[in-house]
Amino acid sequence: MRLLRLRGRIPGCLSASSQGRTLPASLAACPRIFAPRRSFTVARTSCAAHSPVLTADRYPHLKRDTRYKALTDEDIAFFKSVIKSDAGVITADRPDELEPFNEDWMRRFRGQSKVVLRPKTAAEVAALLKYCNEHRLAVVPQGGNTGLVGGSVPVHDEIVLSLQNMNEIRSFDEVSGILTCDAGCVLEVLDNWLAERGYMMPLDLGAKGSCQIGGNVATNAGGLRLLRYGSLHGTVLSMEVVLPDGRIVELGQPLRKDNTGYDLKQLFIGSEGTLGIITAVSILTPRRPKAVNVAMLGVSTFEGVQEVFKHAKGELNEILSAFEFFDHTCLNLVKHHIPNVREPFTTQTPFYVLIETNGSNKDHDDEKLAVFLENLMTEGVVEDGALAQDSTQAAGMWSIRETITESLAKEGGNYKYDLSVPVPHLYSVVEEMQERLASVGLFDKNGSATGRVKHVVGFGHMGDGNLHLNLTSTGWAKDIDEAIEPFLYEIIQKHGGSISAEHGLGLMKAPYLQYSKSEAFIELMRSMKSVFDPNGILNPYKYFPPLSK
Amino acid sequence: MRLLRLRGRIPGCLSASSQGRTLPASLAACPRIFAPRRSFTVARTSCAAHSPVLTADRYPHLKRDTRYKALTDEDIAFFKSVIKSDAGVITADRPDELEPFNEDWMRRFRGQSKVVLRPKTAAEVAALLKYCNEHRLAVVPQGGNTGLVGGSVPVHDEIVLSLQNMNEIRSFDEVSGILTCDAGCVLEVLDNWLAERGYMMPLDLGAKGSCQIGGNVATNAGGLRLLRYGSLHGTVLSMEVVLPDGRIVELGQPLRKDNTGYDLKQLFIGSEGTLGIITAVSILTPRRPKAVNVAMLGVSTFEGVQEVFKHAKGELNEILSAFEFFDHTCLNLVKHHIPNVREPFTTQTPFYVLIETNGSNKDHDDEKLAVFLENLMTEGVVEDGALAQDSTQAAGMWSIRETITESLAKEGGNYKYDLSVPVPHLYSVVEEMQERLASVGLFDKNGSATGRVKHVVGFGHMGDGNLHLNLTSTGWAKDIDEAIEPFLYEIIQKHGGSISAEHGLGLMKAPYLQYSKSEAFIELMRSMKSVFDPNGILNPYKYFPPLSK
Repeated sequence: MRLLRLRGRIPGCLSASSQGRTLPASLAACPRIFAPRRSFTVARTSCAAHSPVLTADRYPHLKRDTRYKALTDEDIAFFKSVIKSDAGVITADRPDELEPFNEDWMRRFRGQSKVVLRPKTAAEVAALLKYCNEHRLAVVPQGGNTGLVGGSVPVHDEIVLSLQNMNEIRSFDEVSGILTCDAGCVLEVLDNWLAERGYMMPLDLGAKGSCQIGGNVATNAGGLRLLRYGSLHGTVLSMEVVLPDGRIVELGQPLRKDNTGYDLKQLFIGSEGTLGIITAVSILTPRRPKAVNVAMLGVSTFEGVQEVFKHAKGELNEILSAFEFFDHTCLNLVKHHIPNVREPFTTQTPFYVLIETNGSNKDHDDEKLAVFLENLMTEGVVEDGALAQDSTQAAGMWSIRETITESLAKEGGNYKYDLSVPVPHLYSVVEEMQERLASVGLFDKNGSATGRVKHVVGFGHMGDGNLHLNLTSTGWAKDIDEAIEPFLYEIIQKHGGSISAEHGLGLMKAPYLQYSKSEAFIELMRSMKSVFDPNGILNPYKYFPPLSK
Repeated sequence: MRLLRLRGRIPGCLSASSQGRTLPASLAACPRIFAPRRSFTVARTSCAAHSPVLTADRYPHLKRDTRYKALTDEDIAFFKSVIKSDAGVITADRPDELEPFNEDWMRRFRGQSKVVLRPKTAAEVAALLKYCNEHRLAVVPQGGNTGLVGGSVPVHDEIVLSLQNMNEIRSFDEVSGILTCDAGCVLEVLDNWLAERGYMMPLDLGAKGSCQIGGNVATNAGGLRLLRYGSLHGTVLSMEVVLPDGRIVELGQPLRKDNTGYDLKQLFIGSEGTLGIITAVSILTPRRPKAVNVAMLGVSTFEGVQEVFKHAKGELNEILSAFEFFDHTCLNLVKHHIPNVREPFTTQTPFYVLIETNGSNKDHDDEKLAVFLENLMTEGVVEDGALAQDSTQAAGMWSIRETITESLAKEGGNYKYDLSVPVPHLYSVVEEMQERLASVGLFDKNGSATGRVKHVVGFGHMGDGNLHLNLTSTGWAKDIDEAIEPFLYEIIQKHGGSISAEHGLGLMKAPYLQYSKSEAFIELMRSMKSVFDPNGILNPYKYFPPLSK
């Protein structure tokens, strides 16, 4: 494969041929906007057709805790006295309105709450929570309800406290880029608001059209920009929280530096609503890039993918904003299920890499990309590749990566795992799982998709060591469940990985926490819970593994 | 002032004239290394000549707590049975060796410890700490002892547990850049080790030749690179800690993403040794930049400094690595006290800005800087400026910024405050303090240095909203103390700022915590302390304000 740099004004122009095929990848001026990636306002999907709904009866250890009082008319009357507006308290006499709060968007987890509270101020949240705490009414805080582990819906009859009516921007400092807003602000709304001011949110998720910043913080959302802009532990500067006893506490101030006392807000980042309710967030927002480039590359080994990553860190360095990978089966499934997919090139390779750069000078970024690609090709690291010529092509490349999930869901049973292991071992987890399933006769490693497990694939945020391991099957079955778990958790543990890279624990992963955390750690977690929520009213049945008897 | 872009290969070349003076600032190829800034192996200074040593008798509320047992020969015998080497336990019969552990490097804070323990492994730390906890022996963990608030030396007879013998690098992943090392590794040693592998530490401090990574983490050190590489809350991935009860607990794993449970390591970042002892750290290290540029600019108003910052974020964006400012008095003091200071230009302006860029392509960075400077000059935001032509000139510019502290110390009494306020109010804190001192007859605002308070100056990490407010006086006096405090803390509170941006609380700022944190917050801090260190043996008398009777 050759890469020629053209001598035009734009130094990044390239043409390349690979295995006799010419790549029309000359780089035209890419509009200086973000590639319009797929964002969606979450509509509940039809996954239920394929996957069993996980109501409480699926979890025999999750009996309703008798510590919690059942809801009465007096409670409702109190809630209505706090939140005056009619739309602020939704009760069981409006089942259609209530239902979406009881069920997650995948229709996998379903609770039986009888009331949803939608306060408009932190003071209202405080009054409601204090009452619930004093009366031992269990509460599930809910943001955009876009989670994947059943963390934001009730298990039994917990009260849903939705933040969706708290959605004001409180302040923005155009010098420092510090934004302070209510917890219920939708991520995409914030990002659009900032775009007009030349700034952007430091995180980006597929669910950005529905997810709320409070929920993002409570679940420590990662997403696509983490590689560049870092985690919320670095970008969230302060927050306002309401504790179960009704105290409204400022955890920090909207400052970049503050070394006065324990950084308590950090405990709330990723606490999944178990410590208190986040009502406002201050976050450091970066300047919006003026130039965006997207490239897709074909690589023949996972070692090669790692080489590409090393080069990206070296040559693209400060402009690298995403480094995603997926295997060949993922691409095939997308081509099979998604209409009008346009492959940037047709050379088939075992692995594909999608790279995005964000920078402040288009010419400079093009030139860096050209050098990067030239080095890769000189060293024979990539088999083929293409560089998006405009935002439509860029969106097309992103669309391949982002429709993998949808394509997998269309295959029948879809087992989904979100894990993180040191980058060198990332794909071996997939291979070890393939071996395992082949050894028990469930999977044909030769790719004929004739086993009851049809596909075992890997894709994800390679730059963060974050693998989405997915299996598709002819249907859900106990022997498949047992072939996967706890085997998978054991190999993650063996590689020093995490059983949840970004989705969190919720209801789904709580029982397996010991594969990522020691007994001592879990004991400290329980102590934290006791300090903030001594009566255990917040988001019960989740996050913690069941206590052994 | 005009800026002409030359038509050579290096697009960043500039020449400028200002007020009839020609600026020889044409940009030659700057060696692709970091400007060799001043780092120092901390030697104890002569500050004591000017400032009173703060021994325990200065703090009447800090009587020795009778909960703690006094050291006995049996205790020493036990310590020696744990740490076999002679150098591992330093006792009072070797006073010269003991003394440096009892006193901070500024010689401001002095304790009376009778023993220093220098374990080599986490297991040794665990055995020692468990014993101390069971016998109620108070312990001060100590890293490089380079702190500024008396946090790392004993107040009374606490045992010093030094991490300096735990200094091994445990692992480094060249793909992800994740480094795992013992807590006692010296920051500069780590940075040099990484340099050979093309990486760098994500933090940089003047004290890097002495400070240790464990101490950096325990005090949440900020420093010069924070603007670019973020705080330790974002870059520290996991740590190994020893709790007072002797448990060795892994807080997280060396992974970029891990959403399994509360992020407990975050509590230890900035905990100043009050919760447990950090024995190892995993940290994400960035690639070392190939190009470094440094520029110094003169600006006539603080609003202008903010304008320069906005431009820097826009035009330099991803390559901006430092944005420091200092006022005219600072520069004058440096010129007065430091031999052979070379001013980059002689136009006098009320404010100066020092800007550094780090990037992966020298030509691109030069061009971005040229555009940035051109825009500033076109808009008339800066009065004069210079761009370093080589690493010597770059080091010279940094040296002006970094000798401000030394110059102030030479003036006599030197009151030092490290605070953070929203950027727009940053310099008004200095002006309000000048007004205040003038109003009580201590300071002459016209700059004649005839008052007993000679100078009231501001400098610091503007990009982080971090102001170092310093006062010099003819000597220490109670009326000066009282004119400053609590007035200063009140204005910081009024502006929504922090009384300690990066130095921490230690012994010095603990009594004033309520100016930055609410009662509810401080109560939660005490609860955290009770969970991790129920007997209160770790770093007593510090960090928390005294309990009101």
